[in-house]
Amino acid sequence: MAHLSEPSFVERIRASFARQNAMHLIRATLPVVEEGRTEIHLPHWEGVEQQHGFVHGGVVGMIADSAAGYAAMTRVPAEASVLTVEFKMNLMAPADGEQLIARGAVVRSGRTLIVTRAEVFAVKGGKESLCALMQQTIMVMHGKGEK
Amino acid sequence: MAHLSEPSFVERIRASFARQNAMHLIRATLPVVEEGRTEIHLPHWEGVEQQHGFVHGGVVGMIADSAAGYAAMTRVPAEASVLTVEFKMNLMAPADGEQLIARGAVVRSGRTLIVTRAEVFAVKGGKESLCALMQQTIMVMHGKGEK
Amino acid sequence: MAHLSEPSFVERIRASFARQNAMHLIRATLPVVEEGRTEIHLPHWEGVEQQHGFVHGGVVGMIADSAAGYAAMTRVPAEASVLTVEFKMNLMAPADGEQLIARGAVVRSGRTLIVTRAEVFAVKGGKESLCALMQQTIMVMHGKGEK
Amino acid sequence: MAHLSEPSFVERIRASFARQNAMHLIRATLPVVEEGRTEIHLPHWEGVEQQHGFVHGGVVGMIADSAAGYAAMTRVPAEASVLTVEFKMNLMAPADGEQLIARGAVVRSGRTLIVTRAEVFAVKGGKESLCALMQQTIMVMHGKGEK
Repeated sequence: MAHLSEPSFVERIRASFARQNAMHLIRATLPVVEEGRTEIHLPHWEGVEQQHGFVHGGVVGMIADSAAGYAAMTRVPAEASVLTVEFKMNLMAPADGEQLIARGAVVRSGRTLIVTRAEVFAVKGGKESLCALMQQTIMVMHGKGEK
Repeated sequence: MAHLSEPSFVERIRASFARQNAMHLIRATLPVVEEGRTEIHLPHWEGVEQQHGFVHGGVVGMIADSAAGYAAMTRVPAEASVLTVEFKMNLMAPADGEQLIARGAVVRSGRTLIVTRAEVFAVKGGKESLCALMQQTIMVMHGKGEK
Repeated sequence: MAHLSEPSFVERIRASFARQNAMHLIRATLPVVEEGRTEIHLPHWEGVEQQHGFVHGGVVGMIADSAAGYAAMTRVPAEASVLTVEFKMNLMAPADGEQLIARGAVVRSGRTLIVTRAEVFAVKGGKESLCALMQQTIMVMHGKGEK
Repeated sequence: MAHLSEPSFVERIRASFARQNAMHLIRATLPVVEEGRTEIHLPHWEGVEQQHGFVHGGVVGMIADSAAGYAAMTRVPAEASVLTVEFKMNLMAPADGEQLIARGAVVRSGRTLIVTRAEVFAVKGGKESLCALMQQTIMVMHGKGEK
């Protein structure tokens, strides 16, 4: 049950995230859902590594894509769902840390398309450093809300 | 051991892929490695699904990124390694099928940068349909070959 | 007047191109309009140069964006118009030649969104070399045809 | 002659901009050059319009590309020059106003690659509205400074 003080999108987004098997597979969590922004956290564990022991760039892309997509979902009505049309991502430094934090935010929302961005930070010894930057286009599917 | 008839990059790329835990986590395989092109295959299984039961767009991105990155690696000397600088990906249709095939190919290779593209196909009932298109920039790190 | 044998989109696209002042400013022409593909040609002249005497990357982007956008327009009904949602472009070599040719083509067309690509070639001494690669998303505006 | 108080990159960047014929063709100016950021201004005039009377998306791309590229150039030594590797741009609203302002900024600078972003605003009746967002990769060419 949603807390009385929570906006309705929080419950919908948490329910959607709970159904994303791929997010559980990589052990991602969604601790922050606010109007126009979300955060996805990912612990560094061996299952998500690439050949040099850093987090795989594709996994960095997964959490950036999802964080920004859910930021967009905070702006659409309950009867609508969101789809990623495309995203572009720069991997600027190795994803080197105990944890990654992907912060997604809405840049501009229209009725049919929403433009978002995400930044991914590696947290090492308590210090955050920016490792990836993403720009994304989301499509709103009206009349096709997630159950 | 590499077959006598294989070019040397095949063995290096297979060894690199074998060290990518994230590729094993999602159950991806690399059945094709040829000069300038590779294929990564992914079975559809519940661990890689998003909330609608299709393969997660971020997972589609992972195999596209890796297929194109390894295509680039076929063009660099053994003493060098490759890094993804950035990629841009359009998700054009739901990744709906028993299997996904990501085909990566080199568009143009320079000494420092290599431009690649990847197409991802969903295979359903034996029929392939294009579901994603990616354009990528790879950086060659000379003197930093993978062990 | 359109030739009897021409599909109706050719006339609409030529009329639209004729109203694009920016295309005339850079001296671009649109010699090829076919179902799902177009070509824009640009002579190399001093007005479009950057500081090294090659054609400016932004001008390369202009002709790639327009060539691909008009390729998309061949797929929409007369009562609709097209808008560029976004594009991503790799500049792979200096645009060095007497002429540039941008070839736009549709990759996948849906009712609301069309994904396209464009390649830009520099023609030097009669020989074409690929200098830029673009991937683009186009939105179809139904009920808003160009007059 | 550079003012005594100006950092050395200002003079180099102004000289480079002065050699860009394509910037003069569209009547763009570069009123702001500071460490890590620049601004390019473009008056709305009929030569840069597309078929609906707004500024052409490709022209918006030109000023975004240049503003961000010159922001990168503030971070490289005098013996080096910069090249656009690629850029990705979302056109979020018609470029509708008396003037456009492209603001370029460095996101992260490395020795060989610099990641930048640009925002383009339309100014109408003194009010700015964001119409385009760009993410870009710049390559530093050491030992190849612009004269």
